[in-house]
Amino acid sequence: MIVVMKLNAPQDQVKAVKEKLFQEGFKPHLIQGVEKQVIGAVGKQDISLLSGLETMEGVEKIIQVSTPYQLVSREAKEEDSIVEVDGVKIGGRELAVMAGPCAVEDFKQMSSIARFLKAQGISILRGGAYKPRTSPYSFQGLGIEGLKILYQASRETGLKIVSEVVSTSDMEVVSSYVDMLQIGARNMQNYSLLKEAGKTKKPVLLKRGMSSSIEEWLMSAEYILSEGNPNVVLCERGIKTFEKYTRSTLDISAISLAKQLSHLPVLADPSHSGGSWKLVPWLSKAAVSAGADGLLVEVHPVPSEAWCDGPQSLNFSRFEEMLRDLKPVAETAGRTLPGSESLTQSLKEGRQ
Amino acid sequence: MIVVMKLNAPQDQVKAVKEKLFQEGFKPHLIQGVEKQVIGAVGKQDISLLSGLETMEGVEKIIQVSTPYQLVSREAKEEDSIVEVDGVKIGGRELAVMAGPCAVEDFKQMSSIARFLKAQGISILRGGAYKPRTSPYSFQGLGIEGLKILYQASRETGLKIVSEVVSTSDMEVVSSYVDMLQIGARNMQNYSLLKEAGKTKKPVLLKRGMSSSIEEWLMSAEYILSEGNPNVVLCERGIKTFEKYTRSTLDISAISLAKQLSHLPVLADPSHSGGSWKLVPWLSKAAVSAGADGLLVEVHPVPSEAWCDGPQSLNFSRFEEMLRDLKPVAETAGRTLPGSESLTQSLKEGRQ
Amino acid sequence: MIVVMKLNAPQDQVKAVKEKLFQEGFKPHLIQGVEKQVIGAVGKQDISLLSGLETMEGVEKIIQVSTPYQLVSREAKEEDSIVEVDGVKIGGRELAVMAGPCAVEDFKQMSSIARFLKAQGISILRGGAYKPRTSPYSFQGLGIEGLKILYQASRETGLKIVSEVVSTSDMEVVSSYVDMLQIGARNMQNYSLLKEAGKTKKPVLLKRGMSSSIEEWLMSAEYILSEGNPNVVLCERGIKTFEKYTRSTLDISAISLAKQLSHLPVLADPSHSGGSWKLVPWLSKAAVSAGADGLLVEVHPVPSEAWCDGPQSLNFSRFEEMLRDLKPVAETAGRTLPGSESLTQSLKEGRQ
Amino acid sequence: MIVVMKLNAPQDQVKAVKEKLFQEGFKPHLIQGVEKQVIGAVGKQDISLLSGLETMEGVEKIIQVSTPYQLVSREAKEEDSIVEVDGVKIGGRELAVMAGPCAVEDFKQMSSIARFLKAQGISILRGGAYKPRTSPYSFQGLGIEGLKILYQASRETGLKIVSEVVSTSDMEVVSSYVDMLQIGARNMQNYSLLKEAGKTKKPVLLKRGMSSSIEEWLMSAEYILSEGNPNVVLCERGIKTFEKYTRSTLDISAISLAKQLSHLPVLADPSHSGGSWKLVPWLSKAAVSAGADGLLVEVHPVPSEAWCDGPQSLNFSRFEEMLRDLKPVAETAGRTLPGSESLTQSLKEGRQ
Repeated sequence: MIVVMKLNAPQDQVKAVKEKLFQEGFKPHLIQGVEKQVIGAVGKQDISLLSGLETMEGVEKIIQVSTPYQLVSREAKEEDSIVEVDGVKIGGRELAVMAGPCAVEDFKQMSSIARFLKAQGISILRGGAYKPRTSPYSFQGLGIEGLKILYQASRETGLKIVSEVVSTSDMEVVSSYVDMLQIGARNMQNYSLLKEAGKTKKPVLLKRGMSSSIEEWLMSAEYILSEGNPNVVLCERGIKTFEKYTRSTLDISAISLAKQLSHLPVLADPSHSGGSWKLVPWLSKAAVSAGADGLLVEVHPVPSEAWCDGPQSLNFSRFEEMLRDLKPVAETAGRTLPGSESLTQSLKEGRQ
Repeated sequence: MIVVMKLNAPQDQVKAVKEKLFQEGFKPHLIQGVEKQVIGAVGKQDISLLSGLETMEGVEKIIQVSTPYQLVSREAKEEDSIVEVDGVKIGGRELAVMAGPCAVEDFKQMSSIARFLKAQGISILRGGAYKPRTSPYSFQGLGIEGLKILYQASRETGLKIVSEVVSTSDMEVVSSYVDMLQIGARNMQNYSLLKEAGKTKKPVLLKRGMSSSIEEWLMSAEYILSEGNPNVVLCERGIKTFEKYTRSTLDISAISLAKQLSHLPVLADPSHSGGSWKLVPWLSKAAVSAGADGLLVEVHPVPSEAWCDGPQSLNFSRFEEMLRDLKPVAETAGRTLPGSESLTQSLKEGRQ
Repeated sequence: MIVVMKLNAPQDQVKAVKEKLFQEGFKPHLIQGVEKQVIGAVGKQDISLLSGLETMEGVEKIIQVSTPYQLVSREAKEEDSIVEVDGVKIGGRELAVMAGPCAVEDFKQMSSIARFLKAQGISILRGGAYKPRTSPYSFQGLGIEGLKILYQASRETGLKIVSEVVSTSDMEVVSSYVDMLQIGARNMQNYSLLKEAGKTKKPVLLKRGMSSSIEEWLMSAEYILSEGNPNVVLCERGIKTFEKYTRSTLDISAISLAKQLSHLPVLADPSHSGGSWKLVPWLSKAAVSAGADGLLVEVHPVPSEAWCDGPQSLNFSRFEEMLRDLKPVAETAGRTLPGSESLTQSLKEGRQ
Repeated sequence: MIVVMKLNAPQDQVKAVKEKLFQEGFKPHLIQGVEKQVIGAVGKQDISLLSGLETMEGVEKIIQVSTPYQLVSREAKEEDSIVEVDGVKIGGRELAVMAGPCAVEDFKQMSSIARFLKAQGISILRGGAYKPRTSPYSFQGLGIEGLKILYQASRETGLKIVSEVVSTSDMEVVSSYVDMLQIGARNMQNYSLLKEAGKTKKPVLLKRGMSSSIEEWLMSAEYILSEGNPNVVLCERGIKTFEKYTRSTLDISAISLAKQLSHLPVLADPSHSGGSWKLVPWLSKAAVSAGADGLLVEVHPVPSEAWCDGPQSLNFSRFEEMLRDLKPVAETAGRTLPGSESLTQSLKEGRQ
């Protein structure tokens, strides 16, 4: 920690700061410069102390030297973490592609999507049963009914299930149906929810808040890890900016940076960030090239009839096309598409 | 609703859109222009329909005409709403000033603050018992213990209590101790929490999310009203921008605009927005001049020893000075300070 | 300057950094902590050196301790600067209110506005002759013709003239007609223009760029002062944010902060920031309460016929009403309205 | 254009708006809905009229239907434009990679860089002779001396030159030395400069302003085209957001969108956007995957000694590595690296 003193702060103020630092277990060093006096105090960081220091007489500002996250940091663990969702690995050589509709609508819908995705080699099905909607008058999700439909679709196809949990009181029931919990952008700083998710030990897909810095995002992951659950997958889904042509701005650098700063797997959500199906294939390729470990993609059999997020959903043929386009890009990143080995196998067989 | 068709969209696509609108209960009108074809369909808004339309062939974009909020809108209720917190009115001629520390620390602290505030004419005491903190390693609040301390301080002084609730599972216990529930910026789109707050009928102080548009903020208030609780007070607390010299950017226009768009009372939080006690008096005066119905201010006996948010807390003498400065500004806005009538009375008595 | 070394940076890297600092005239101090090694080097700041350091082996980051602006800083000059525009003082007890239309349209318009403003006590007339417009197909201003009209209106009424200069090649001609040069938000980082404005010695009204930090804004003022022109008046006009209900977000804290960080006068532009005449009176009062030394307001006889910015322009009666409302607020800030002393005088005379 | 009338606007106000529209050459259509009255007026857009309408009695808001840009739009020209820089094609199958240092320092530096780049197959050399710097005390570029050095390096190697012009008064001299003019982010809305650049007919590299919307960026390109110069290449270089870990946020969607909305070539600047050489290879690959026609990359022989932007510059070996990594990604996008055909040729020859 660095304490910058005000220009011409008198010696008794400097002394008071040094003493306080000493009492708190730091070893303070005064650096007397021509313009400013600076007190260096490298030690275990303590945020509450920091807050007190800033209001002491003569102090201009406090500068933090260390990053505040610990368990999630690359410094804590050098090698990439691989998170397993009931046997499906996220963070390894195979890209993780989670796909499905914005909202679970009915069993027929989910079943047709699940069977289609399975045929494409996809292993994880997404679908919202509890929907956080801006308007109380919008469709709020089917709730438990939706979870049951997801579960049925999973049993039918073997796909793993990821679905959003929006409240601590639903944590138990959601956990009992899904293989992976999703914490959405609007709840990224709902710390009660993060702590509960930390206690479940279920894999957690943690979306970045629309206005959360990379540091805040990693700190939210730290909440989950610090409760004893290391199975966190980060997901960049776009941030709020002044730009109006897109729903939000996919922060492509955040993908590369999160990979550098943390050992956790990082996915991208090309559907919510752009808000338009036309951007999805481009953003998907870009994200994989930037180092993403996978994608979260909205797919719907008939987007124009989707109960929500239709404009950003791919229909079946567009999703297939996207995967086809993505394959060579994935390969340049040393990655394979989900199920691609068996796919290649079946293609070979088909050729005989 | 306005549907803008693509340049040269063929007639069958135009027809299909018109038919869909007709089926959904709209009366569509085609406007044939030299450059674009536009279909006007003024009717009850339906967001799920809107989403479907955008993906129909030939459609370029959909433009919404009506605002999506209803119960909170000025159109729904022309006169200003006054929200009562156990007898204390918010939204009337008297400014509402809620003050207190960031976090409840111990009874001695709260008691001294409460007695000080009472002497200043303040009627509502704030203090965090459940703290949403960016780091899991920061002080998280005293929880129920903190609520009990607040309650004791309230019994001792008669001050009303406002305190934050961060989880649906704490709603019952928090409600039983406080006079007004606070929903913080990070939980502004925690819809489960909003719905629960709507069911309690307790007055709710709803802070604007750091990256929430004015529309999203009003929609979150709509959640609470639509559950049957009309007692919502809005609070602008600064938004995230690129500026680094302040903790966040107080959106002063949002105060004036929220008053124009909605009938609900609107407060400002000059402490969190600027992040520095030096800005608090300036932002307080500006907010009242912009039409705010009151303020939420952090006050601590010794800010340099505060467990959180010390740098933005006023000490007692600075708070007194701020009130003194604020008084004439309040008067220019046709407002009185809290307790100012009795204060004038005591001043008169003092003069005899 | 503080150099934070990477965790476990070997001693030869630390030594290399210390030597480089020493060669550049700094006195480096190593602080050996439990987690990080930090090198303190308080000295004259040198940005080009800083850039080299950051890429040396073992260096994690460089932290600047001093502010980069010098001549404009409060540390350089403690008392408030007063800028004179041909005898009219900006930055003193009397608020500076500059008013007029977005664009100069014709002499009749300017003359009627100038005479109206004079009757209100206003001393400085604004009006654009060169307009920076987003679209090349929008009206670009009357150019020299517009300057001549402004000059005539000035001769007729004695009002001083402020008008925007958008190009170094127009600097001479604009300077010869106006009393104060305006540098607009879009040109705040047009450094060629700033340098030219610095050479003229004319008073300069420097608007904050829509996405410029307070620091960048002060640095742009530093450009003008460092060319030998101390007559700079800052003007906050709103920044770009995600909010869509306003044209831009008036950064009210920036007004208070600029006054604390710099000795230069600071105005607010309530017209461009909100983008709506309905917000102008509220934002004007808020700005003055936040410490602004004056306002830049768009006024037009018939806003619905204005060639640009009609929606944010006040008509005459609304401007009068705004001044009337502003007067008591100004007084609470220890300020007078322009011309208010003579106004009071004439009122007194009227009473006889 | 759509005019939304206020709830319950009386018939005479509706009539007045319709008449005004009629007089301006529009064919107005009233759509009477249950909640709102809306007047559709599809016709040639006229921004000055629009501004007047918004202030008419009874009008709630105006909604624009058409995009304001014309010459640059995909609707105006369906096929991709290819811009030639003295024979080097930008926008075709071959990626355009422009590389070089932030600033021209001396001939030895430029010569070594130019020869290195040539050996890598690069055809366009960048280097700043006029530098727009935040601080007046930072190095401002060598000016004409720098242009002469660039020119010499160009004659020596045959590389084409792109360099920034920051002032209309330098336009002639800069144009006489360079093959392509760069207009930087800070000058994207310096309309005088855009118009002058439009008159030169030189190819122009137009960087997106740090806070400019995609629409404003395209409108700035429209300025150049409307002066008769169709040779514009767009360059996304990152926008300002709240995120502090990166210098700015590369808006990857803007690349894909600009390609959809306009026929002009679009480059990405991975150096300025991220602000760190560690991000450059990742952002480069992402940009090409998102559809970019090329890159603008900062390269310096010894970044730690660069006079500016060292931290974001690649040294020679890192640039080579980046190109090697980029090659397969470019191929998946149906692209080739610059000089790759001749490179392949020379490689073949080398093998003999």
